[in-house]
Amino acid sequence: MKKIINQPENIIEEMLSGIVHSYPELVHRVADSRVIAKNTTNKQVGLISGGGSGHEPAHAGFVGDGMLSAAVLGDVFTSPTPDQIEIAIENADQGQGVLLIVKNYTGDILNFEMAKELAEMNGIATEIVVVDDDIAVEDSTYTAGKRGVAGTILVHKILGDAAGHGANLATLKELGDRIVAATKTIGVALKAATVPEVGKPGFTLSENEIEFGVGIHGEPGYRREKLQPSKDLAKELISKLLAAYEQKPKEIGVLVNGMGGTPLMEQFIFINDVLQLLTKEAIHVSFHKVGNYMTSIDMQGLSLTFIDLADHSWQKALSSPVSTISW
Amino acid sequence: MKKIINQPENIIEEMLSGIVHSYPELVHRVADSRVIAKNTTNKQVGLISGGGSGHEPAHAGFVGDGMLSAAVLGDVFTSPTPDQIEIAIENADQGQGVLLIVKNYTGDILNFEMAKELAEMNGIATEIVVVDDDIAVEDSTYTAGKRGVAGTILVHKILGDAAGHGANLATLKELGDRIVAATKTIGVALKAATVPEVGKPGFTLSENEIEFGVGIHGEPGYRREKLQPSKDLAKELISKLLAAYEQKPKEIGVLVNGMGGTPLMEQFIFINDVLQLLTKEAIHVSFHKVGNYMTSIDMQGLSLTFIDLADHSWQKALSSPVSTISW
Repeated sequence: MKKIINQPENIIEEMLSGIVHSYPELVHRVADSRVIAKNTTNKQVGLISGGGSGHEPAHAGFVGDGMLSAAVLGDVFTSPTPDQIEIAIENADQGQGVLLIVKNYTGDILNFEMAKELAEMNGIATEIVVVDDDIAVEDSTYTAGKRGVAGTILVHKILGDAAGHGANLATLKELGDRIVAATKTIGVALKAATVPEVGKPGFTLSENEIEFGVGIHGEPGYRREKLQPSKDLAKELISKLLAAYEQKPKEIGVLVNGMGGTPLMEQFIFINDVLQLLTKEAIHVSFHKVGNYMTSIDMQGLSLTFIDLADHSWQKALSSPVSTISW
Repeated sequence: MKKIINQPENIIEEMLSGIVHSYPELVHRVADSRVIAKNTTNKQVGLISGGGSGHEPAHAGFVGDGMLSAAVLGDVFTSPTPDQIEIAIENADQGQGVLLIVKNYTGDILNFEMAKELAEMNGIATEIVVVDDDIAVEDSTYTAGKRGVAGTILVHKILGDAAGHGANLATLKELGDRIVAATKTIGVALKAATVPEVGKPGFTLSENEIEFGVGIHGEPGYRREKLQPSKDLAKELISKLLAAYEQKPKEIGVLVNGMGGTPLMEQFIFINDVLQLLTKEAIHVSFHKVGNYMTSIDMQGLSLTFIDLADHSWQKALSSPVSTISW
């Protein structure tokens, strides 16, 4: 394993310190916690997210005005504990309640639900939006149902915009569930990630092999195959995504998300193929985003997310300015 | 070679198309060219940059209000041709001349100088700022003198701010030369990049080996050694950078730049070590930036850039808002 780290057992502490000291104008660490919070406080519903580390810039990179109030970091690929999540909730609450945006993994769901109970015992109203946008497989290594992946970033953005405009907790919960239903993601991996504490890749693909539908913790996908041209990958992923909608969307947003080890060059070539194919499908793309947003440490590969933008206000919400490290 | 591409000979065309179609609200392609220009035109000195591709998001990601007027893309690791640079100059000129920001590689210098001559024959005043921030080695595979690397992004930013505030061509040229003199970079590589047309890594490091001072095209550095903890790498790179200043700076900006294949987790751990060591040196850091800005395709490694911020207006210029894809 070749990584620029010190002791593997200290990576979360050091990374967290690196983030807050690099962007002191935007975020800070809540004392004695693994919570990164924004510096400003606004009278609005608090939005928090989090999960295992290793998906940087998610979620700390999306803390700031117009997106998340705070993010809570677990160990690598491991849910944060309920007490840490509760600290994030307490920090985010401005008297109007807190919405928890949680990727659908069994450990995360359990811990965020426990934190919700703790918060409610302390008089803070909370709701949970569970993101399960990965359409590759039903149930997985760490998940009942579908996994939550890169589409979570779009959920952060639209909810962040709505919360900033004064939406209340019940409205945000209902909106969040609708955004999740409209958001579908599927990925492809060329090479597995190496968790620092483990020291070797989580799975092995041969020199010419790729895997469709791999999860962001290296969970198995649905097919291994010989590496194909970008155009053919785009064709397969698009057809899977469109088939997952009950009704074929007319207008969508597209997110191409790099997994951490895939350069922008490939991501831009891939989205070029995606956009050309969507033109042929007569689907209008009114929002685009390309880059590393929900990574799997150093995995090589990418994911493709569609969001149905039938509700035009979502397009506007996706495009509004924010003050975060990484949006 | 495992890459998400189609035919290697089409990657520039397809990447360029992917960039402009993903960010149509910010940039467009100048017809029949390899020039990406911003959509707005302002009455100011034009700023252009460019060079070989493979360093994404540089330079197209820095085109927009407050930074570059246009970027011109060469083949992978190959200078753009003078006629293409001349198209960028013509496009960027608003009657007040155009400043060319060029990384110090022999091919780039030659071609940008020829384009400058062409532009002047067409009545456009031009100046060139040559960036040679890489202090690792004197002269290199493609360079006489020092190489131009990630510090170029900071030059774009401060000059972009000054041009937007109405600085004239002579002022920008003089300012640019001063910024370059204040900007020093040094890098370390864990694994070489693979150029798609070549199909294999540009050099080989053994399983535990790193190379100090590698260039962004895989040019040789100054020492190979066993992989060290992040803290020790930080110590070495800082001491080299500080030694390159005639006078030890009191206040600096710090850029940690990922080379394309190194995850943010490692970059944040590394900057955490850098910032702790600089505190011990009693050097104040008033600007920070972490991420993939000047990459070498999928190289694993990073570079560290310092900019002396004795002139406080530069700190302000680095922090002003811009409308670009990637700053």
